[in-house]
Amino acid sequence: MMESKGAEKRRVARRRRVRKGLVIVNTGPGKGKTTAALGTLLRAWGRGMRCCMIQFIKNETGNWGEVKAARQLGIEWHQMGDGFTWLSKDMDETVAKSRHAWTVAQEKIASGDYNLVILDEFTYPLKLGWLDVADVVAWLRDHKPSLMHLIITGRDAPPALIEFADLVTEMQKIKHPFESGVQAQPGIEY
Amino acid sequence: MMESKGAEKRRVARRRRVRKGLVIVNTGPGKGKTTAALGTLLRAWGRGMRCCMIQFIKNETGNWGEVKAARQLGIEWHQMGDGFTWLSKDMDETVAKSRHAWTVAQEKIASGDYNLVILDEFTYPLKLGWLDVADVVAWLRDHKPSLMHLIITGRDAPPALIEFADLVTEMQKIKHPFESGVQAQPGIEY
Repeated sequence: MMESKGAEKRRVARRRRVRKGLVIVNTGPGKGKTTAALGTLLRAWGRGMRCCMIQFIKNETGNWGEVKAARQLGIEWHQMGDGFTWLSKDMDETVAKSRHAWTVAQEKIASGDYNLVILDEFTYPLKLGWLDVADVVAWLRDHKPSLMHLIITGRDAPPALIEFADLVTEMQKIKHPFESGVQAQPGIEY
Repeated sequence: MMESKGAEKRRVARRRRVRKGLVIVNTGPGKGKTTAALGTLLRAWGRGMRCCMIQFIKNETGNWGEVKAARQLGIEWHQMGDGFTWLSKDMDETVAKSRHAWTVAQEKIASGDYNLVILDEFTYPLKLGWLDVADVVAWLRDHKPSLMHLIITGRDAPPALIEFADLVTEMQKIKHPFESGVQAQPGIEY
């Protein structure tokens, strides 16, 4: 029996609608890269998904609004950076911390224990050459569980990472209050 | 005594660093407008701030990941839309709902009870002319408590709103998985 054109279309659409763990990159010079990742985290947590945040730049003593929230929500959270690298007195230690954070990220991703893993500000060690982009992408291609979602944030996402990602958004600054002398506001920007 | 150039610069910088309730607009065709607002909400909630979400398009029956999360977190949340307007069978009712949502938003904002109010997808009633942009901006200028933060999301933010805002980010789509037939993923996109 010939399939009707409508039925065929629906069958094809169904086959193409894949349930898949997405690789999401939030990049660009504007605000909202980490913030949008936090929004997705809230959404995922609301659905009872198991989530893990690994922060590559923020250091362990930062007590940001999102860290306070995660503690109350029981979300696994690792601040593994050295603060801001351009303030670092010991670049070797900064680089070592960043590589260590990637080792921890690899363990968490490969474990299969999570529905969502966020690598916050992960583009910086890639951009600065502390980790090799091709190696990282090859590792993710082989080891990321197919249904696990992965979010990577940070400026200047390298082309190989964009190529690998499913969803890439670039945040562009149109207007920023620091320019008019307004300081960063607690609860809003940190 | 003459002030040194450095001391003068610091004095001016200090005077200019104002604590202020920001007006934030997340716009553009890319993902992450509502999501970044949710991230800010999580941050603000983590600091014990009082928050209120008013959604202008999403209807009351949508049980999204963020709604589930907000319920557990005790965040005030109003879904006051009519679903997606282009599916509406009764445009008069859709417009009326939208105007009613603005009335509720005005009450919440003017009450002074909140540190953060989010008007999600509020650009659409402005863009479609259901509310007058100049009136809305004039009302906000007069009634928004000076320390209250306000976030407005949605595509095509009108110029008068951008002019009024302190912080405007445009989300640009670089790559989107729907294009390759991957469906929207629960916990990630809703």
